[in-house]
This record gives sequence, structure tokens and C-alpha cells, in this order.
Amino acid sequence: MQGPQDNTTTMPDSTAPALRAAVVGATGYSGQELLRLLVRHPHVDVTGAFGSSSTDAPRRLPALAKVFDGDVVPYSDDAVAACADVAFVGLPEAASATVVPALVARGLQVIDLSGAFRLRDRGLRAQWYPKSPDPLPDGTAYGLAEFDAAALRGARLVSCPGCYPTASLLALEPLVGAGLIDAAADVVIDAKSGISGAGKGATERTHFSENHGSVAAYGPFGHRHTPEMEQELGRQVTFVPHLVPLDRGLMATIHTRLERGASPDAVRDAYARAFANAPFVRLTADTLPEIKHVAHTNFCDIGWRIDVASGRIVLVSVIDNLVKGAAGQAVQNFNVSRGFDETLGLR
Amino acid sequence: MQGPQDNTTTMPDSTAPALRAAVVGATGYSGQELLRLLVRHPHVDVTGAFGSSSTDAPRRLPALAKVFDGDVVPYSDDAVAACADVAFVGLPEAASATVVPALVARGLQVIDLSGAFRLRDRGLRAQWYPKSPDPLPDGTAYGLAEFDAAALRGARLVSCPGCYPTASLLALEPLVGAGLIDAAADVVIDAKSGISGAGKGATERTHFSENHGSVAAYGPFGHRHTPEMEQELGRQVTFVPHLVPLDRGLMATIHTRLERGASPDAVRDAYARAFANAPFVRLTADTLPEIKHVAHTNFCDIGWRIDVASGRIVLVSVIDNLVKGAAGQAVQNFNVSRGFDETLGLR
Amino acid sequence: MQGPQDNTTTMPDSTAPALRAAVVGATGYSGQELLRLLVRHPHVDVTGAFGSSSTDAPRRLPALAKVFDGDVVPYSDDAVAACADVAFVGLPEAASATVVPALVARGLQVIDLSGAFRLRDRGLRAQWYPKSPDPLPDGTAYGLAEFDAAALRGARLVSCPGCYPTASLLALEPLVGAGLIDAAADVVIDAKSGISGAGKGATERTHFSENHGSVAAYGPFGHRHTPEMEQELGRQVTFVPHLVPLDRGLMATIHTRLERGASPDAVRDAYARAFANAPFVRLTADTLPEIKHVAHTNFCDIGWRIDVASGRIVLVSVIDNLVKGAAGQAVQNFNVSRGFDETLGLR
Amino acid sequence: MQGPQDNTTTMPDSTAPALRAAVVGATGYSGQELLRLLVRHPHVDVTGAFGSSSTDAPRRLPALAKVFDGDVVPYSDDAVAACADVAFVGLPEAASATVVPALVARGLQVIDLSGAFRLRDRGLRAQWYPKSPDPLPDGTAYGLAEFDAAALRGARLVSCPGCYPTASLLALEPLVGAGLIDAAADVVIDAKSGISGAGKGATERTHFSENHGSVAAYGPFGHRHTPEMEQELGRQVTFVPHLVPLDRGLMATIHTRLERGASPDAVRDAYARAFANAPFVRLTADTLPEIKHVAHTNFCDIGWRIDVASGRIVLVSVIDNLVKGAAGQAVQNFNVSRGFDETLGLR
Repeated sequence: MQGPQDNTTTMPDSTAPALRAAVVGATGYSGQELLRLLVRHPHVDVTGAFGSSSTDAPRRLPALAKVFDGDVVPYSDDAVAACADVAFVGLPEAASATVVPALVARGLQVIDLSGAFRLRDRGLRAQWYPKSPDPLPDGTAYGLAEFDAAALRGARLVSCPGCYPTASLLALEPLVGAGLIDAAADVVIDAKSGISGAGKGATERTHFSENHGSVAAYGPFGHRHTPEMEQELGRQVTFVPHLVPLDRGLMATIHTRLERGASPDAVRDAYARAFANAPFVRLTADTLPEIKHVAHTNFCDIGWRIDVASGRIVLVSVIDNLVKGAAGQAVQNFNVSRGFDETLGLR
Repeated sequence: MQGPQDNTTTMPDSTAPALRAAVVGATGYSGQELLRLLVRHPHVDVTGAFGSSSTDAPRRLPALAKVFDGDVVPYSDDAVAACADVAFVGLPEAASATVVPALVARGLQVIDLSGAFRLRDRGLRAQWYPKSPDPLPDGTAYGLAEFDAAALRGARLVSCPGCYPTASLLALEPLVGAGLIDAAADVVIDAKSGISGAGKGATERTHFSENHGSVAAYGPFGHRHTPEMEQELGRQVTFVPHLVPLDRGLMATIHTRLERGASPDAVRDAYARAFANAPFVRLTADTLPEIKHVAHTNFCDIGWRIDVASGRIVLVSVIDNLVKGAAGQAVQNFNVSRGFDETLGLR
Repeated sequence: MQGPQDNTTTMPDSTAPALRAAVVGATGYSGQELLRLLVRHPHVDVTGAFGSSSTDAPRRLPALAKVFDGDVVPYSDDAVAACADVAFVGLPEAASATVVPALVARGLQVIDLSGAFRLRDRGLRAQWYPKSPDPLPDGTAYGLAEFDAAALRGARLVSCPGCYPTASLLALEPLVGAGLIDAAADVVIDAKSGISGAGKGATERTHFSENHGSVAAYGPFGHRHTPEMEQELGRQVTFVPHLVPLDRGLMATIHTRLERGASPDAVRDAYARAFANAPFVRLTADTLPEIKHVAHTNFCDIGWRIDVASGRIVLVSVIDNLVKGAAGQAVQNFNVSRGFDETLGLR
Repeated sequence: MQGPQDNTTTMPDSTAPALRAAVVGATGYSGQELLRLLVRHPHVDVTGAFGSSSTDAPRRLPALAKVFDGDVVPYSDDAVAACADVAFVGLPEAASATVVPALVARGLQVIDLSGAFRLRDRGLRAQWYPKSPDPLPDGTAYGLAEFDAAALRGARLVSCPGCYPTASLLALEPLVGAGLIDAAADVVIDAKSGISGAGKGATERTHFSENHGSVAAYGPFGHRHTPEMEQELGRQVTFVPHLVPLDRGLMATIHTRLERGASPDAVRDAYARAFANAPFVRLTADTLPEIKHVAHTNFCDIGWRIDVASGRIVLVSVIDNLVKGAAGQAVQNFNVSRGFDETLGLR
């Protein structure tokens, strides 16, 4: 079997044989979304859907009838390796930490949605993802397709960003990168996520009645997406996520200050430059974006408002946490890693 | 200790010593609602709050801070009997089946919210509630305060109707009782309940994401509230409940046919007569009632529409499933059982 | 310009020139969904998006940025005729009653989503849609692609079924057609719709706070989808719709009785035969379907339960009211009318 | 008629004649909540319910049947003055600006829920509430019962705080007042409100489908609750409100920095001191509060988390915007203004 690098030198034409893809963790919310996207990807054949353990009974996914009618079968390294060139893995962090290296070792390309391979700093990784391997497998690349395409090209293990970092970094990196944010200012990320972000586990936290008519903040100063964002931005952020009573979607509202002298035009230009060729970022400028407009899409909509007198700026960034924040981004990153058109399977 | 009958011969005056009440199953949705109601009942002192088993760790209820600040402590028959004259029991059916007779045997009055003591027919009870005792304890009364006050007076064990039967029977009994419903017609009860009706257990069925944006029918021809309604009406009903994406509230939409010659005025009169003295039933006539108007109240709102040409009639009845369908009705039945004003603690 | 009939004799190959399509009523919920679907239809070029009147100011649709970036411009017959071969019309009934015949007269094929052209009986049409023309334009065809493909082929004016009839007829017609429903039984359709079904108009009825946490029945014995269903079924139905607190989706729960001797196998066979070649109908049998599984898709999921002893049957049918109940069905019917693969643009 | 000051010197006993109260704007969400609360207030007789203009037709409030069965009648100064000692006014700002001074001039005490009388600074008031009178009527007091009881005592015009300021000031004032917040730090108030906060007007903004499954930020740097909070705190705040898909409830998440050397214990002590006698404030400390726990109550729950190393602090404060943020607070302030027990009518 060819390694993924071999495929990236030339753009496959429409007669190229499709890549065989497996989804691991196929019964989870991200896993089902992966199946829904991959079955219509023109260069992919979905050849397997796997549960999260070797002991799950095979089952169908009724919501996917006539979309993906295969069984979700028990997981084993061998079974995945036998059927697939590439594995999309949507497992909890501890499970990914074991499964992913095993699949990479068998020669598969892996697109991983967990946090297990995101942190480059050994100490931080040990702290936040104690089950993660050290060192990371060779050929691991973390990144957003919009900023990190070069690193993603040919990667054998693509570690996809978390949902909160995706929305937050897309809004912040262009401004931080252009030197437009006051280096001494706090960067406060007040985020609001739908309940699917809490996963499919049935707990009091995900019970309908605990969330309907309610909002709950959680994890201030203690969420593991914080070191991920700090790694990418190179500065401290204050991150406070909230659960809001909706299913799919996520908003990051970011409060900070512009560098002295940074103008509204400079902000607009920085965004325009950063996303000139980004098919999935929509700049709404001073019309602040709403979650509804990106639900069930791979778009990230970004708007902002500036108080010129004081230099304060508010950024608002919205995504569908299961698409751009998980399965859609995984497909997008896969496309980039293979040299495909970034939008394949995502329109 | 005096039995409850002794208290019913005279209406207690405002200087009477309060009754000591315990809530069993106090961490459930009905249990918390019971505490909220009982702490403001003028003739009750809440002297204990108990969990559902002897092994639960004591805990506070943060939502009830400054309303009820006591601990919820592990359950034991002795502990309840030591502190209370009356126990309000909001436990799953199998637990109630054991706990309730034990408390009655210790001389307490019990107001039970489960289904364990609702069915009079021995065979049906064995079928639907296999853990229930046979025979039922002496002094057991099942009933709606609006129709069955005489039976409830002085009852040692008050078995409160289920949430679906409460809404359905309040709408149907006046018409069936007055002979206004065609004896040969189907009586179809299509009911819609908020998710709190599924209880506090965290399951895939109660997960936020499974219910947000969805409606699910369940249990047609197989729900144990069916025999309860058939017992009270003396005829077959078709009952199909649905879960709808809201927390509290329940609507029963009832489709049937009038007896030949039954007029709209006869329907109106039957309702007016049945509820002339019912403080918690509001007749909205041809303005069909909505769940929102009864949420967080003990009201049952009932409206109806008739197609005179064909004799078809639609009844719509709404309640808050945790108040009129559970805790509020329990307090109302308790009031009736004691000869108190029916509305004490419920306004 | 060729009339639509000419296109139906042969299946267009992938090099055929695309049809030019306009969407009229493009700012409504159905109109936006039409744009979203049509831009990815392989045989369609969206050449115009029109508002509902000649006086609307041109505007963009922010939710459709990078999907459809054209302006929605004021409506005029001439402007639509100048740019399009086919017009998809998502207007209120009274507006459609005028606009559609004008466009047909100019030689366009029209796919109409309103009720104005659904009723064949002149008297019923005058009663329920007083603005509708009489007679209907030549070449008008009403129908569901699953049952009425022959009538839809080559139709110049396709009148699409209402959202409630779509879900209800797909569940009922196979059984009624096979003689499996007791001719003397009531057919009770208790339906639950998301609020988008009430349209984009801002009224107290569509206010968030009136619907959150609530359910409201409306229009029993008086909804204009009733005569539409009775026309297709050839028998009386009792139809009671409800608004439930979700955005998109609709469930029809249908309560009736089987013909004496009709077996569960006969029911299953009737459905299997009716939908053997229907790509958008999924039979879930005794696993009752849920709205969530069809949201944002063109699927109709149908399940059922039978009480063999009594002959009672409950059918549950769910669709997304904006897709299979409106825009998706319109595209499906358009595909059938043109002889295209039924699923183009809809996967 | 006695002026309100006369009542405040002695606590009325239970035999004192009740005050006659009118609700103006009784069909709005706050107005209906006022009626619901005032009918059970032991020292109040609700003698009138008025609409917002002289031309509204009289109407009943079906949700309040058997709670308040009076008609809501057209507004006139004379009609209110004829029936009431005190008027609770829940009108839009421009209407309050006219109605309230007229009622004060007729000798009534007025409890106003609008923003028209909140800003003491003439210039700011002219900017944000251009219809407001200048100067304010004699005897005007703005304030929170928890902090401003002295000012409220005997006030002829009580101007109640806005919903966002109520939640925010209760969390911030104790810390700012104790000198615990870094004077140079930004104070970022990221707030989330249910849709009832947008009022009963039917607009695209309040349409169910625009909010279900969505979150929308609005008004950064431009909301008129900002100058109100800055007036009370004496410092700049950054305030960004959001609409979240729920009906009732509001959360303020406040991000700022402690003064160097301020300890977690100092924060806890400042709160404990500030609210030692506050019956409606519940301190949840590091258990962050949730909207659900305060819905339908007059409680404000406040929690907080501190990152000791950096001095960053996050405060979370939740209220029901229609109760503690509007009608409940109005009753509480009325109680304080009259020298009644603060909790009358609110338990």
C-alpha cells in the first residue's frame, strides 16, 4: 500500500481509484457526521465503520439509513488496517492515544479528532492528556487548513484542532499574527457551545432537563483547550466555556484590545489577507454572526466591532461544532493532506 | 400517634400544630417540587428529606438553597417514621412497592406518586406493576381531587394518578360520565410530554441532543397508564404518548365522537357542572389551551372543538407534569385527605 | 424556448446545457432552502432570486454567503421570464395565485409550493383558496413523486403537496390503496410541526417566548390541508395540527383501524411494494421514527404499530417540513417532471 | 390619600388596610408577572390593570385566569389615579417618560421598570433616553434593594435597575466597593439573556426560528445598560449581551482582575458581608450557578473562580430576567420603599 505522501505530489484526476476510508468511533456524534460527509466524497470509499471497543455488538445507525447502511462493527487494529488506507478516528482522548499509534504503525494515514496529539510541549501534554504517547508519532501534524496547509501536506497523522480552538484561532490568529493585538492586554474568550459538544455520554450534565431553559459556565482556568490555544497564539488567554441549550453550534466571543494605533482598516485588511483563499471562512464585519447561519455547514463566520476611542475590540466567531469543529474540519484537513481540492465532500 | 382519619373531622384552625412531613425521593424532579411546595404549606413542617436508598450520601439541593436547606439523607423506614406524620413518596414503582407499605405499617399517612398502588384489578396490577403488593394496604385510595374527594378523605395511603391520566381523565370523565361520548367510538389519546416526564435518569432517551429539535412517539398499546385510564373510564382507550422538546408540561389531545344527539351546549354544561367548585381547572372552551399557560402551576386547562355535522370532538387538556401531574396534585390530594382547603400551599 | 415536455423524452447527459432557474420568494424559509438545493443541482443554473413583491429593496442573504451570493431583487413577471426556463415559487397562496399563471403564460415551467393549485374540485378550491384561478392552468399536475410520477412528467405547472399532506399521504396511501384500512373507521391525523411551518412572518404566534416550553393545537376541523388529504385519499380524515417548540420538522401520528383480517404482514408488504423504488422513503417498521433523523434531509421515515387483537394501527411519519415538505420535494418533483434522476441535488 | 412616606415610619400590621395597586402595561411579559406577584401580596389589592395606550380594547389574560380575572383596560392617567395608591409601570421607555411623571403629579407612588429614570447625569440621559424628563421628578430613587435600601425608603418614584445591571451589579459592587478589583483592569461583562428580555414585540429578532438553535451577540459598546452600570460602579465596563435560545433567565459572566494582593478569602468575605441580610442572593462560590436554578424565582445566584497565580477572576451571576430582573425586583423595591418585609409576595 502506498503511504499518503505519495498521493500528494499530483492532484488525482477523476479516474483515480478512490481511497478506502474507515471511521472509528462511528456511533458518536462526530463519527456519524464523518460517515455522512465521507459517503459523498468523490475520492473516498467508506469501507468500514467501527465502534469504540472490541466488545461492542455490531449495529446499524438508523439515522443514516440509505446514507450509510453498513454495520458498525467492533474495533480492532487488524480489522481497520485490513479494510482502509485512511482512518478517521473520533474517540475519547484516552482511546485515541492507544488506537492512533497502532494504526499509524500499520501504515494507515490517520485523521484524529481527539486532543491526544495536539500539544507539542511534552510537559503540557503529560499534564492535560496523560495517556498520550511521547514522543508523538513521526509525521504528526496539528493544524487548521486555513493557516497550516503546508504542515498538513502529506501528514501521516493529522491531529485536528478542538472545537473551541477552531473558532477562536480563526478569529484571533490573523490579528495576533499582524501585530494588531496589544501584547499586554487580556484576551478573554467567552465561548458558548451546544450540548453535542459534551459528547454522547448520558450524564446529568447532558440530560435534557438540566439544559433546557438554562446556561451553565464550566471549566474556567481549567479547560484543556486553553493550552492548545496558547500554544498556537504564543500568549495567555482567559477561556470560559458555557453550555447553551441548543444541539449543534458554537460561538466564541473574544474581548481584547488593539495595539495602540491599530486602525479598523488594518483589522479588516488583516482578515481579508488571511482568508483571501479560504472557502469556508465568511467575514461578516460589523454584522455580528449567528450560530444559526453556520449550523450543518463547514463555514466559520467571523465578525467584529471596535470602540475606536478606547481601542477595545470584540470578535465573534461561530461554527457548527460537529462540522467545522470536528468532522468537516477533519475532511478538510484530509483533503489538504492529500492535495485534493479543500472543499471536496463539504459543499 | 394519631391516624389521619382523626384529623379530618374538623377543619384545623390556624393555631393547630403543623403536621410533620417527610419527602422520600427528594432528589428527583418530583421530589424537589414537593419540597418547594411543602415548605410554604401553612399546616406542614418539612421535617425530613430522604433519598431513594439507604446508601446515598447526604447531599444538599443547590437549586433549593434558601428554600429548603436541609440535607437529603439516606432512606430508612425508621428514620422516616421517627420524624414524620405523613410521607410524600416520589420513588420508582418498584421502590415504592416496598417502601410505602412499610411506612403505612408504621402508622404514617403516605401520599404516593408512583404507579404501584393505582390499579385495583389484581391481574392487571400483577401484569403492569409486578412488584406491587397484593392485596393493597387497607385504607388505600386512588383518585383525582376533582372527582374522588370522598374516597380521599381520611385515606391512609393516597395513590396519586399518573401524569397522563390526570390530564386525560379530567377532560374525559365529565363527558363519559354524562353519557355524551359515543359508546362505540374509539377514544384516541395522543399525548405530548416534556422530558422531565421521563425522569431524572441519564439515558440516551433523556440526552439533550436526542430530544432538541425532535419529537418521538413511544409505547403505543403498551404504556401502563393505559390500564389506569381504562379502569377509571370503564372503556378502552388508544393511548400514544410522545416526547416533545420541552422540560415541563404535558398535553393530551383526545379524538373521539359524541353520542348521537349530544349538543355543544350539553358538553359545555357537563364541564361547567363537573368543575363548578374546582379551583385548579380552567375551561377555555374553543380557545384551545397551551402548555405555557399552566407551566409551574397546579392548573389543568381544558378546551374543545366539535364538528357538529359529523359529531367528532377534539379535547385538549394541558398540565405541568411535575405540578398537577405529580407534586402539586399530591399536595392537593393530601389537603383533601385531611379536610384542608384544597388550595393550601398551591397558590 | 422549448417547453418542458420536450426535455422528458430523453435523460439529459452530463454535457446538456443547464436549465436556467429562478427562485421567487427567495427570502422566505422555503425560498432560502430552494436556493441552497438548486445551486448544487448539476442540471440547473440559478439565474435569479426574487422577492415577493415589486417594491422590496434588493438584499443579500447573509446565511447563504458563499453559497448563493446574488441579490434578491424585486419581483416582476418580465424579470423572471427574462432570466429563467423554470421558476420555483415559494409565495403565500394569494400571491402565487396571481404570479404563477403569469409565469406559465410566459412559457416558463413553474414549480409552485403554495396551496393555490392543489385542489381539483372547483367548489373546494373557491372555499379554501378564494384567490385561486378557475380553471387551473393547462398542464397543472399535483402530486407526490412517490405516487404520481406519471402525472408529473412534463407538467408545465407542478403544484407541490403541503407539508402535512406529504407526511400523511406517504404513510396512508399505500394502506388505503391496498384496501387495508377499515372503510368505516375514523382516520385521525394528529400532527406536530416545527415553527418554521408557520412561516417567516413575525407574529405573536411565531414569537420565541410563546412557543418555547409550549405546545399549541390549532385549526381542528378547519385547516386547508384537510381537503387536500381527503382529495387524495377519497375519504374523510380528522386532522389536528400542533406547533411544537422546534424549528424544522414535522410528525404525523395517524390513528385508525385495519380492515378486518388485514394482517401485519399485509401492512409490511404494502409499504414495501409502494416504496420499493423510492429513494427518499425509509421504512422503520416497529421502530417508530423521530424527527431528528430526517431534519435537513429529503427523507420521509415511516413506522407503525398494530394491536392485532383490536385491529387498531398507529402510523408515524416524519419529514423536514422545509425539505421533503417544501423545497426538497419541489426539486424532486422538478426532477421527475424533467425525467432526471429523482435524487439530483438532494443527496 | 396618604403619600408613601407616611407609611414607612412604622411596619404595618396585618390589620392595616391594603394599598390599592395598579399595573400599567399589564399585557407585556413584565406586566403579567407583576400581576401574578401582586395578587398574592398580603398588603396589596390589585385594583386595576391597564394597557399601554388609550386605544387598546379591553381584554382578558388567559394565562392568568383564576389568578387575575380582571380586564386589562385602556390607559388613562385619570383612570389609574382613580383606582390606585401605587402604580407599577412596565412600559417602553418613551411611554414611561410621559406616563410616570403624570402619575407622580397626581400623587401616586410609581414603581417604574423602564430605563427612563435611571441615569442621573443629564447629558447621558439625553443621549440614551431622549424622551426622559429633565429634571427627574422629585423623590426619584434608583436602586437595588440589596445596596440602596436607604435611598428607596419613602421614594415617590422608584426607578428599578435594568435586567443586565441587576445581575452584573450584584456581582460586581461588593468587590469594587471593597477595593478588590484592579482599578486599571478591564471589566468585561459577557451576558446571555433569554428572548423574553427582547420584549413581547413580534419582530424577526424575536421569531422562534431565528433563535432556536442559535446564539446572537448584539449591541457591543452601544447598549444603554452600559452607562447605567458605569454610573453605579464609577468605572468603565465592556458590555456585550447575547440572546440565547431560552425564554426566561439571564447570566452575566464577568471577566476582570483582582487588585494585587487581594486574596480569595477577601473576595469571599466581601460577598458574605454584602449579602449577610439579603434574602434573595445566594452565594454558590466555586460551584458556578446556572440559570435553571433561578428561573421563576426572585433569587440572584453568584459564583466565582480565581486564578490565583495571575489574579484573574471570573464572576457568574444569574437571575430570572422577568422576576429579579423586572417584576420581582419591582415588588421587592416597593416593599423596601414602604418599610415592609422585603420578601412579601415573593416567596
